Amino acid sequence: MAAKKKTPATPPPSPKAAAPSGGTPTMTDRDRRTLDKIHKLTARTLATVEKGQNPALEIKTRALSNVSFNARRRIIELGDRTQSREFFNTGMARKFMQTFLVANECKNLIRENKTITIRQLYYVTKHTLKGSTENTFEDQSESDPIIEDLEVTIDALREELHLFANKKGLAAGPVVMVDSGDEIDLSRMGRGGWGIPSICEPEVLQFKSSKAEFALLVEKDAVWSRLLEDRFHEKNKCLLVSSGGQAARGVRRLVQRIHEELKIPIYVLVDNDPWGLYIYSVLKQGSINLAFESMRMAVPGVRFIGMSASDHKKFKLPKAVEIKLNKEDISRAAQMRAYPWFADRKWQREIDALLENGFKMEVDSILSKGISFITDEYLPKKLRDKDYLV
Amino acid sequence: MAAKKKTPATPPPSPKAAAPSGGTPTMTDRDRRTLDKIHKLTARTLATVEKGQNPALEIKTRALSNVSFNARRRIIELGDRTQSREFFNTGMARKFMQTFLVANECKNLIRENKTITIRQLYYVTKHTLKGSTENTFEDQSESDPIIEDLEVTIDALREELHLFANKKGLAAGPVVMVDSGDEIDLSRMGRGGWGIPSICEPEVLQFKSSKAEFALLVEKDAVWSRLLEDRFHEKNKCLLVSSGGQAARGVRRLVQRIHEELKIPIYVLVDNDPWGLYIYSVLKQGSINLAFESMRMAVPGVRFIGMSASDHKKFKLPKAVEIKLNKEDISRAAQMRAYPWFADRKWQREIDALLENGFKMEVDSILSKGISFITDEYLPKKLRDKDYLV
Repeated sequence: MAAKKKTPATPPPSPKAAAPSGGTPTMTDRDRRTLDKIHKLTARTLATVEKGQNPALEIKTRALSNVSFNARRRIIELGDRTQSREFFNTGMARKFMQTFLVANECKNLIRENKTITIRQLYYVTKHTLKGSTENTFEDQSESDPIIEDLEVTIDALREELHLFANKKGLAAGPVVMVDSGDEIDLSRMGRGGWGIPSICEPEVLQFKSSKAEFALLVEKDAVWSRLLEDRFHEKNKCLLVSSGGQAARGVRRLVQRIHEELKIPIYVLVDNDPWGLYIYSVLKQGSINLAFESMRMAVPGVRFIGMSASDHKKFKLPKAVEIKLNKEDISRAAQMRAYPWFADRKWQREIDALLENGFKMEVDSILSKGISFITDEYLPKKLRDKDYLV
Repeated sequence: MAAKKKTPATPPPSPKAAAPSGGTPTMTDRDRRTLDKIHKLTARTLATVEKGQNPALEIKTRALSNVSFNARRRIIELGDRTQSREFFNTGMARKFMQTFLVANECKNLIRENKTITIRQLYYVTKHTLKGSTENTFEDQSESDPIIEDLEVTIDALREELHLFANKKGLAAGPVVMVDSGDEIDLSRMGRGGWGIPSICEPEVLQFKSSKAEFALLVEKDAVWSRLLEDRFHEKNKCLLVSSGGQAARGVRRLVQRIHEELKIPIYVLVDNDPWGLYIYSVLKQGSINLAFESMRMAVPGVRFIGMSASDHKKFKLPKAVEIKLNKEDISRAAQMRAYPWFADRKWQREIDALLENGFKMEVDSILSKGISFITDEYLPKKLRDKDYLV
């Protein structure tokens, strides 16, 4: 079924028409809008220079003080406070120029229809200024924040700038997708699964058909493999997604699109520890650091199916699988407890129960009840009993 | 083309015939042989007990002192020295029993035709001994070496015991594979690629057809993505494999089978630093820790295509991409220099050149010459000039 032929809806880039180095010559509407945003930024700046004034960028402040939880939309949002970055200011000139250096390279990427990682962007933009020993960037920790500055300044996300961070995550289940013109049947991936791309925007990735009744995102590749081998996805008509720890942007975006376009619930299965809760929290509400992108990434309705602090009793797990909470766990749990999106009593109870237990549990520990207990008992019971938190 | 239908050669497990939790009821010849090995081990031990003697296991010593380089076969091999592990010995009794605990669980896994990770095995075998506070294992660092002990004792690899470690790596290119009965066309994976399973044995994974003229293994997912987007695999008829750092066992085994069954050369592209050399070295010769499995994993003929210390001059890379070697780099390079399989003058020159440069370089730094320089110039030139080391 999969990859039988290219869909007419999304013609693959023709190798002939392409530049020597691939990349499609066609530009999407979104690319045009992003280019326009970069162009406006530079035109505005040039106009200021021509008037003999000090050019400046207005950059939204990316700090906790400018972040708030929108209770109605249930996502973390960036406020409107900005800070000015001026050219004629010894403390700001370097960053001012770096911003345009990055903007210029993003313009090239969009025009050539190529994508690179933020590390690669660092290499592409790094050079020694002529006649000096000054480098444009010393290391990547200098270029990464500039990318975020540019994102908020022109209101374009990293993916729209043709940049991506790390790639992680796998998917398998009864869904057929089209990616870059290739038709991919996720139900026929053997034991391997399909690697989720870093950029999961509708321009390159579309859903062709789906028989999935829900999606299950698991934190751990090993658990994903276990469920796949037990054919959980077939028995339960579900799309199995692994995030390999904290979900990368590609996974988050894909999960959001699955939720909105396929209109199916998303369940999340993570370790019963503060880190697991945090992974769920970021999927649900977005992260504070990247509040400006929550709208495009967060899935407020994502369902936390486990592991719960109460699973230990509920499923009679042996005492031997308990792992004592350490100091860091306890302080992170307290932090989590204070998040506005965990203010509801059921969440407060959940986090309190973890602290009262005094121990954490890994999803793998469910296997102590039997190799396929998670497939045959744990998840079916949770789903049957609607035993999840939102 | 991909996943069009199941191949008759490898019938997929029938959900009906399967146990409630999936897993095929059919056992392969190899599974039978492995079960037999476990059975013989236990039968021998029982016979000793019945004779009223002290049962003992003879375990091959997995230490540098028992490892040697077989210059003819060009792989690292484990010697014949063994150590005895006795039941009636207070220092050995715990490990003696742990070995049988693990062997017993592997027997169950083989019978049920299921696979788990070594972490999951830890959970499955961990329990508190009845009427005591003694745990069978305290943590995974106790169970992992027991698995290796069992592997060398009965001469069965981890994969044959139905165990695996981490899963990493992606593949894309003009090869059609069959995995667990699913036909997968690696040339039609969009930007995602196929996740390489942890166990890549012929019983579950077969090559159906290939138009690949070589395989290129890159250390970094980001470089893999760059090449894929530039359609390097199409232009050069090559299978693109990413290892995501040090290659996992699944990747190593797959690469070995590609080399032997598809009879194509394997090129490796890693960072120009001691870690990159080590990644190449393990692919080529195996690791000292796991010398007993070299035969099944190592590809002595694997070709090191870069990055070389001389690439900096050869491709006129800017000075700004140099990263100064630190102390650890220098001592690791010296270690690498002493490996017998790097004794050849060309390798000594390569490692010396790295040390003389005094800096290392990441593959990503090639992008400083242009986004697609690696696709259009760097790799084609290297291939054309046969500019590689073996």
